[in-house]
Amino acid sequence: MDAPRQLKRRGACAAADAVMPVWILLSSVPGLKAEDGGMEELTTEKEAEESHRQDSVNLLTFILLLTLTILTIWLFKHRRVRFLHETGLAMIYGLLVGVILRYGIPATSYHNKTPPSCSLKEGPASTLLLNVSGKFFEYTLKGEINSREIHNVEQNDMLRKVTFDPEVFFNILLPPIIFHAGYSLKKRHFFRNLGSIITYAFLGTAISCFVIGNLMYGVVKLMRVVGQLTDKFYYTDCLFFGAIISATDPVTVLAIFNELHADGDLYALLFGESVMNDAVAIVLSSSIVAYQPSGANTHMFDASAFFKSVGVFLGIFSGSFVMGAATGVVTALVTKFTKLHCFPLLETALFFLMSWSTFLLAEACGFTGVVAVLFCGITQAHYTYNNLSEESTKRTKQLFEVLHFLAENFIFSYMGLALFTFQNHIFSPIFIIGAFIAIFIGRAFNIYPLSFLLNLGRRHKIRGNFQHMMMFAGLRGAMAFALAIRDTATYARQMMFTTTLLIVFFTVWVFGGGTTPMLSWLHIRVGVDPDQDLQPCGDSFQSKTKQESAWLFRLWYTFDHNYLKPTLTHSGPPLTSTLPSQCGPLASCLTSPQAYENHEQLRDHDSDFIRNDGDLTYTFGDTSITANGASGGGGGGAAEPAWSANGKRSGSTSEEALERELDSREQELLSRGTRLVFPIEDHI
Amino acid sequence: MDAPRQLKRRGACAAADAVMPVWILLSSVPGLKAEDGGMEELTTEKEAEESHRQDSVNLLTFILLLTLTILTIWLFKHRRVRFLHETGLAMIYGLLVGVILRYGIPATSYHNKTPPSCSLKEGPASTLLLNVSGKFFEYTLKGEINSREIHNVEQNDMLRKVTFDPEVFFNILLPPIIFHAGYSLKKRHFFRNLGSIITYAFLGTAISCFVIGNLMYGVVKLMRVVGQLTDKFYYTDCLFFGAIISATDPVTVLAIFNELHADGDLYALLFGESVMNDAVAIVLSSSIVAYQPSGANTHMFDASAFFKSVGVFLGIFSGSFVMGAATGVVTALVTKFTKLHCFPLLETALFFLMSWSTFLLAEACGFTGVVAVLFCGITQAHYTYNNLSEESTKRTKQLFEVLHFLAENFIFSYMGLALFTFQNHIFSPIFIIGAFIAIFIGRAFNIYPLSFLLNLGRRHKIRGNFQHMMMFAGLRGAMAFALAIRDTATYARQMMFTTTLLIVFFTVWVFGGGTTPMLSWLHIRVGVDPDQDLQPCGDSFQSKTKQESAWLFRLWYTFDHNYLKPTLTHSGPPLTSTLPSQCGPLASCLTSPQAYENHEQLRDHDSDFIRNDGDLTYTFGDTSITANGASGGGGGGAAEPAWSANGKRSGSTSEEALERELDSREQELLSRGTRLVFPIEDHI
Repeated sequence: MDAPRQLKRRGACAAADAVMPVWILLSSVPGLKAEDGGMEELTTEKEAEESHRQDSVNLLTFILLLTLTILTIWLFKHRRVRFLHETGLAMIYGLLVGVILRYGIPATSYHNKTPPSCSLKEGPASTLLLNVSGKFFEYTLKGEINSREIHNVEQNDMLRKVTFDPEVFFNILLPPIIFHAGYSLKKRHFFRNLGSIITYAFLGTAISCFVIGNLMYGVVKLMRVVGQLTDKFYYTDCLFFGAIISATDPVTVLAIFNELHADGDLYALLFGESVMNDAVAIVLSSSIVAYQPSGANTHMFDASAFFKSVGVFLGIFSGSFVMGAATGVVTALVTKFTKLHCFPLLETALFFLMSWSTFLLAEACGFTGVVAVLFCGITQAHYTYNNLSEESTKRTKQLFEVLHFLAENFIFSYMGLALFTFQNHIFSPIFIIGAFIAIFIGRAFNIYPLSFLLNLGRRHKIRGNFQHMMMFAGLRGAMAFALAIRDTATYARQMMFTTTLLIVFFTVWVFGGGTTPMLSWLHIRVGVDPDQDLQPCGDSFQSKTKQESAWLFRLWYTFDHNYLKPTLTHSGPPLTSTLPSQCGPLASCLTSPQAYENHEQLRDHDSDFIRNDGDLTYTFGDTSITANGASGGGGGGAAEPAWSANGKRSGSTSEEALERELDSREQELLSRGTRLVFPIEDHI
Repeated sequence: MDAPRQLKRRGACAAADAVMPVWILLSSVPGLKAEDGGMEELTTEKEAEESHRQDSVNLLTFILLLTLTILTIWLFKHRRVRFLHETGLAMIYGLLVGVILRYGIPATSYHNKTPPSCSLKEGPASTLLLNVSGKFFEYTLKGEINSREIHNVEQNDMLRKVTFDPEVFFNILLPPIIFHAGYSLKKRHFFRNLGSIITYAFLGTAISCFVIGNLMYGVVKLMRVVGQLTDKFYYTDCLFFGAIISATDPVTVLAIFNELHADGDLYALLFGESVMNDAVAIVLSSSIVAYQPSGANTHMFDASAFFKSVGVFLGIFSGSFVMGAATGVVTALVTKFTKLHCFPLLETALFFLMSWSTFLLAEACGFTGVVAVLFCGITQAHYTYNNLSEESTKRTKQLFEVLHFLAENFIFSYMGLALFTFQNHIFSPIFIIGAFIAIFIGRAFNIYPLSFLLNLGRRHKIRGNFQHMMMFAGLRGAMAFALAIRDTATYARQMMFTTTLLIVFFTVWVFGGGTTPMLSWLHIRVGVDPDQDLQPCGDSFQSKTKQESAWLFRLWYTFDHNYLKPTLTHSGPPLTSTLPSQCGPLASCLTSPQAYENHEQLRDHDSDFIRNDGDLTYTFGDTSITANGASGGGGGGAAEPAWSANGKRSGSTSEEALERELDSREQELLSRGTRLVFPIEDHI
């Protein structure tokens, strides 16, 4: 695995090279004259031009493919066809074009000679100099090439041209998709089910990874017994397969959920799980790779190496998390303390650049850019979004919506294409059947036991039909594909890639298409009015807010509401009232004028919203804005009846307040100055 | 010039490669095992990872640079600083970072050994195979390298890393800028001054190119006399310099014009000229290059070669024009005949993809993508824009606005950076001073004689102060830079590049900063209320519409209004009333229901807008919608007084109607169904 992987890491740079190729030529050939031009250079010129044209044609193919997909999507939406989602459609078109490229077009190679070769004793370096009668040419290592393929290096050109560097998926196409997922997160349902989501995403993905890994190791052993395995396939390879195939895809199912207005909690569980487990799967797979070197050539289980890779996992994950959150916080601060919102274009550009820089920053520090981008998106949505001008909130949403749409459809149509144009498929029936069974079992071991455990703690249980739906909705998509294509150098990896591709096709077409019938078969309510669902009234609201027994969560919420929100945005109570009085100057410096306004308005008009929370001792100054402002003025007095009327409320209060705040965020009160803020701690 | 250029054409593919690198590694090393890993491969792994990290850091540098620029732009806008425009600012930041990279950071090369080299008898091929003890590795040609630079191939890495492939400018950064220019064109003023704009852009740029080219040839001869020229510098090189430096930049001056609401016609003349002459300069420079091979080694004037290159110019220009217009028309038809506007996201994505495909299509056919994109933008704005949903019109505008903003600031900050990081500058004082004088003279030969000639035909003269302002506003910017950096392989080209860079700096800072004082010094009216300026009433309107003596223009307008608009959009008179009756079925098939509605409403409410035009014989059916509907019903009757009251009006009618239609377009009547359409031909 090592040699090709290392060479391939050059591939990892390709996306950055894409934007950054050095212009060696510019700086290196000052002495060359026009007269030096000879026949061979004219040939090179022609070749280069032809190759440039070819590149344009290839890219054009993809664009026309996407255009066709868009038109058909429209037709499907227009006619309300739901059995095939746009992603499935994109794959079908990709398949068709793949078939045409593979079988329809004769080899268009512009010359059929074998490239010149030369010999060296030393190992391959990344840069090679070629001395042609005194003139030096610089060459860059592309990779090792199989000796049997030497003669069709050029012939394969057409098919190779339509194949992308796999890192393009990671560095260009995935970030906007993942960022969009984080940015467009429906915060209310997400936060309400945070505990369950984290459990499914972390514990569930780990379980699924190990179950699938071990089952596949059994399959591999079986294959070796029946003589179907011609090459090495280690235990760690199996675990790696478990990791990449455990990343579920939110796209297809959730699009249908959205359209049918299916149950909000189920939506949040599925969405949250699939977004977070993408992050988990990335880090998990790279930890498994890191696990190998220490396991030397045995590739078997080794306790110390295992704990090392757990450490790597935690390090990478938390590092990426911190990185993403930090950029989000910086953006929030910048947008808060400048009056950038007078210039929406500047604001949008800044937002875009800062979000992108998260990715680069994380990659530069050796963390995972995609994971950082996810948390950056969540932070931006939670804080920065509040500071943006009305126009920028729309602009940023729409910008990332378009980028996400294009990237996603591109990946899916590329998947279709890859089935025919990728040249090293290894179709192993036993492995494929084994994998289908394994992902089914792995998903079951993820959903059912964890749901049982979670239900012990949840007030609002995850019912059986929800569990079956979650089981059914475990589609595999872009992330599994991107992880699988990242490294297809070894026999094992090629087999995994082929299998992953087939699993994606099958799940997207069959499970994706079956979502609507499945929903009705499982009696899951659809047509939920999102506005009605959002109204915080009556017992249903009460029961919903109690889903999480989350002291940790409440602690976080209090901290967020009292300190982070007022520091990073224009909303929340003024810091002067939440911070201890020693921090007075700092607090008044960080608090924006709007916060005082909100605060004042709140006291005037919304005192009936003020709740008490006996558990919390933070002070909400109601008569004067000081940290010590204590005891029952008008606001506190008005709140009293609510508290006495419903004794049960104390304890759930902060969640309710969060709930309501999230509601108001989702309904997007656009008059920012008058947005209602719900302070929750009132010390009487 | 040839050898390096040809090699560099590989650079031309870099942008496409960026999205399309082949994954040779994936398809070529199936048999490699983990055990094969050795020490040298671990080094490669480390190197590759280090290089990937380095790439991220470099890109991050640019992003932080842009972020800083945005924040300072905001500060400047906030404080209404006008002496330095954002582009000038971006250049300054670029310069600073360039200085830091050049002098502040020690060489961070990760190893200092000279790369291995090998010898070959044959010329350099694009692909090379390296045989290392039986294993084959594929290498790609990066370019020729100067023998004196062999030993610091790796040492230069840091500086080389921050330098982009020049084709990135052409293939990635320029298209959104140019498309945005076309798409956001203020059609009313533009079309009113179309004749003058085309004259300045085509004739003017050609004059400027030849004047500068010949003057520079004199300078070059002088340099040779005083012994300042150490290498070849041909006449065609001088002409090439004339072509690239004749492309003026609209950004800086027009931003100030926009902010100050300067005279609309002057704005249109400057904007139109600078946008169109970008296109002319691109095609002109590539025609001059094409002119060379036939001129063999003499590089002197050759009549047949000259006419050949004129032919090339016309061929490329018209081909690109047709390509751009065709894509625009296709997009218009697609958006008209599908109900895509119910799904703004799909619509925006389609619009984006179609516009991008223009670029690729033109490049694939051997035309100039950037030129095609300009005309595509104009066509999209003129036709497709009418068919888009209200949300999509905003989305597309904002999307391209952001892209354009980022690309532009990137280019300008990169220019600043290039002054210190580009490693082959040739500062030749005589050439630089000569170039400054030559561009001044060239601009004068463009503006003053052509203005004199145009004034002979224009009713509304281009006054002296306008001419001086146009002379002054001839800044050079992104396009000159992109053309100059495209090829810096020879001594002559390097000298040109350095000089171009200095000219851009000087003109952007000095002329850009001097725009506001210059406007007041020349007594050019500012603070023109664009709405008032748009109101079509009174004599001022009358006099303005007569600026062009444009029978050709009127013919085009009539054709556009009667046939193209109704075919491609929902507006305009129904085709059933403009096409001869034989085409009835086709006409009713192509006419959209909205067109009939508009038509009806027009007859009911706006008959006083209907004008007569004795020159034109097309029929506007006013009582029944037929092609033969003749003579004065209600509409025609109501129009009569206007005609008799002001006899001068006949003849100018189609321009007025255009005028009014463009007005209504610019004011963006959002209720599309009820948009007023002004039919202009009423046959009495």
